[in-house]
Amino acid sequence: MLDKPVIIVNGESQDQIPVTDRGFHYGDGVFETILVKCGQPFLLQHHLERLCHGCSRLKINISLTDITRDIEQALTSIVDHIAFDHILKIIVTRGSGTRGYLPATDHIATRVIILSASTEPAPQHQQGVRVKLCETKLSRNPLTAGLKHLNRLEQVIARSEWTEPAIAEGLMCDEYDNVIEGTMSNVFLVKDDTIITPRLDYSGVKGVMRSVLLNTALPALGISTKESTITLDALLSADEVFLSNSVFGIWPVIALEHKQIWQQGVVTQRVQAEIAKLMKVHRDGNHRDDK
Amino acid sequence: MLDKPVIIVNGESQDQIPVTDRGFHYGDGVFETILVKCGQPFLLQHHLERLCHGCSRLKINISLTDITRDIEQALTSIVDHIAFDHILKIIVTRGSGTRGYLPATDHIATRVIILSASTEPAPQHQQGVRVKLCETKLSRNPLTAGLKHLNRLEQVIARSEWTEPAIAEGLMCDEYDNVIEGTMSNVFLVKDDTIITPRLDYSGVKGVMRSVLLNTALPALGISTKESTITLDALLSADEVFLSNSVFGIWPVIALEHKQIWQQGVVTQRVQAEIAKLMKVHRDGNHRDDK
Repeated sequence: MLDKPVIIVNGESQDQIPVTDRGFHYGDGVFETILVKCGQPFLLQHHLERLCHGCSRLKINISLTDITRDIEQALTSIVDHIAFDHILKIIVTRGSGTRGYLPATDHIATRVIILSASTEPAPQHQQGVRVKLCETKLSRNPLTAGLKHLNRLEQVIARSEWTEPAIAEGLMCDEYDNVIEGTMSNVFLVKDDTIITPRLDYSGVKGVMRSVLLNTALPALGISTKESTITLDALLSADEVFLSNSVFGIWPVIALEHKQIWQQGVVTQRVQAEIAKLMKVHRDGNHRDDK
Repeated sequence: MLDKPVIIVNGESQDQIPVTDRGFHYGDGVFETILVKCGQPFLLQHHLERLCHGCSRLKINISLTDITRDIEQALTSIVDHIAFDHILKIIVTRGSGTRGYLPATDHIATRVIILSASTEPAPQHQQGVRVKLCETKLSRNPLTAGLKHLNRLEQVIARSEWTEPAIAEGLMCDEYDNVIEGTMSNVFLVKDDTIITPRLDYSGVKGVMRSVLLNTALPALGISTKESTITLDALLSADEVFLSNSVFGIWPVIALEHKQIWQQGVVTQRVQAEIAKLMKVHRDGNHRDDK
């Protein structure tokens, strides 16, 4: 197991960035957090696609070749540790700039790769978690909605609302009290055999696991899906509720703070099994050489 | 004149920060940008008060003694250049952290000081500027409104809406088309001898120059002030409009893009004279030894 993170900045093994970086000054960039199983990043292509989409939306010039090479370089550090899970974080910013908000069109992006040993939550979360309803609201902005950008102060403030280990995640609403997402996950409701997840046109991050569920996994199960506005009442009256995240997969939600409201239902279990299957394909694919 | 910026990180002369800094990952911090005249920061106490207020709101532990010592250290580099104006930027973040949004209560803040030669816009802006009405909207969040925090992607996107040098600033509205501020300034309207500026309870930065105007300079001139919701119609029907910023002072606004709408009126001129007086007191105070 890695005893300290492997850090690569612009292709070089180093753990510092210039203080002039626009990621540091303005949060002018995007990031990805990826589960590494059997030494290989799970759902890598999906993460790289979202990274490119985010950079394109923010008009940050990136070279996917450079990023892929950085990732390969980092992964060589764990060839002797592939029995362990790791977390790969990629940060891309608009690079260093002169003073002022105006972005230079000829900027050179900063690429940071941080590969760490995984310290993910206990496996019992797969059986069901308690969540908190955060008082911190998500602001609305269609220009940045959906993106996994570096302006994360709302998540930091929301996450600081609780420290009880029994609460696994906090749900966040917008100012109209529509449920949007968790601080680090997307939220799904099961209601009358349809799976509903919040529209993220004005707030929220379009998670990679969320996209996999909507585009591939749920259609494969023959479950109909809907993106819509979700009120607190709709949340409370859902048959089942679960959270998705590309690192932890699927967590059934069973309680809102100290009140048990939902069951870990059969639909959620089918979804968990489908994601476990995806993970098995990934694992088997990367163990091919061992067979 | 300084040929390159003086940079101090946590009291040490260096120009890098650890990639693990939460300022870089989440924009988890605040900043100040201060005009340095005659070798001394203008309105320093006001800036430090706002910095402390921001850190207190975000629960970032800071030592004002350390920050003041860092500033003094940086200023020693320009003792031979005090005829020139400089810009002092202070960034304070929650420091380095482990993975995840949850802030550690025992964190050690990162302090960054960047002191650069001033490259501020031409003095003709004091006679009146053209502004653009940005399409990028400011999102609403009462928890972060007013603070000069490091989540500045909206300003970056707004500022990238124009590159014409003839446009000095962009005005930003919230999603209800209420005028909130400029990308780097606060906005004031003169209407029937009252000065009105937007309420910043849900969006916007409470600028130091804005506070000086509301609390000291405008009362000293006997001008009544009001913070209120400002519609685009109210903006267009104002007698005079001006922008404030603690580095450039006061800019009268005369045109919206290519259309001249307002005059550089007498009220704005009185406000400019009052701020020039404040600046003269600062200058004379810091030239005391020369007399």
